[in-house]
Amino acid sequence: MSLISDIPDIVIGRLPTYLRALQRMSQECRQVTSSQELGESLGISAAQIRKDLSLFGGFGKQGTGYQIEYLIKQLRQILKVDRVWDVVVVGAGDIGHALARYQGFTDRGFRVTMVFDNDPAKIGAMAGTFVIQDVAQMVSIVREAGLKVAMITVPASRAQEVTDLLVEAGVKAILNYAPINLVVPEGVRVQNIDPVSRMQRMTYYLD
Amino acid sequence: MSLISDIPDIVIGRLPTYLRALQRMSQECRQVTSSQELGESLGISAAQIRKDLSLFGGFGKQGTGYQIEYLIKQLRQILKVDRVWDVVVVGAGDIGHALARYQGFTDRGFRVTMVFDNDPAKIGAMAGTFVIQDVAQMVSIVREAGLKVAMITVPASRAQEVTDLLVEAGVKAILNYAPINLVVPEGVRVQNIDPVSRMQRMTYYLD
Repeated sequence: MSLISDIPDIVIGRLPTYLRALQRMSQECRQVTSSQELGESLGISAAQIRKDLSLFGGFGKQGTGYQIEYLIKQLRQILKVDRVWDVVVVGAGDIGHALARYQGFTDRGFRVTMVFDNDPAKIGAMAGTFVIQDVAQMVSIVREAGLKVAMITVPASRAQEVTDLLVEAGVKAILNYAPINLVVPEGVRVQNIDPVSRMQRMTYYLD
Repeated sequence: MSLISDIPDIVIGRLPTYLRALQRMSQECRQVTSSQELGESLGISAAQIRKDLSLFGGFGKQGTGYQIEYLIKQLRQILKVDRVWDVVVVGAGDIGHALARYQGFTDRGFRVTMVFDNDPAKIGAMAGTFVIQDVAQMVSIVREAGLKVAMITVPASRAQEVTDLLVEAGVKAILNYAPINLVVPEGVRVQNIDPVSRMQRMTYYLD
């Protein structure tokens, strides 16, 4: 499978967007779509979509478009969300609670299974259906459970130390809500969720 | 200023990341940095950073690096966050509440000033320090206040109609937390916050 590792990360980054749009079409009981239609709904050119998908072998015949269910199945396999990944949430503030309670993860490949915090006032309380656990026990519990995916929602000042603990516990993929750039070793990936950066990208264009 | 409109959006998208890293350095009482150091902390090449900044005239002299405070000031001006933008939040669920209560917006150029929902059980209740208002009154209230920036945290099924109302009210920049692609007219920008897409981008690389 050396082919797959050669695919640019920017292409991988577009696949979830394609998958999401296709799943929406599927919910609307659609059966076939085209790179044209998909592109228009996403603001991406049809040529780009065809090119991206061709890296994985295509999935469509010229002139007949894409079978939606088939393409969904393929994309889920490629992105490895044809399974459900257990996720640890670290930080039981507003965002941590929101993530613990969010109902939209499971049918897209993820399931929060544990929540940690370091605040004695929060440990033992509930976040959604989860008892908030002590971050002091996190490394052994996460390692024992074999979790690979984490969400960090602690303050910026604590995010790096939490990251180091998660890496020690064997986590390989971190969704970071703290407004700080995390340092991780080779083989561990971080994606940052920073609403302010996203808004700043838009205000540039405002008068 | 025709120069500025020619700058690729992908470059604009990196500027908030630079700004954030520089502000962090500033908090640590640092005065000078280099494209090298900045790049290492962000996982971006020094050459890329120099190239990006050169599009706006440079800001650094070869060999002496960047004056952090000066570069922060310039980036804030470029991104138009040398002012504070009032923001409307639509949807008073978990995420809407978290955004209404979040303390990290103001020093980065934004301030939530109103929260709307369509649920009679929520209207009149509080989200942070804001009374949740009826979305039926939103167009006139937002237009009257002259708001240009909005955050949408309603369910996917309602997100497009809320978007249409915000556009009608004069909003030009929408941060969308609903897992659906929004259709907006020319001149209105959308940025999507979708944690699941971000996690799917990472699971691709997991075993």
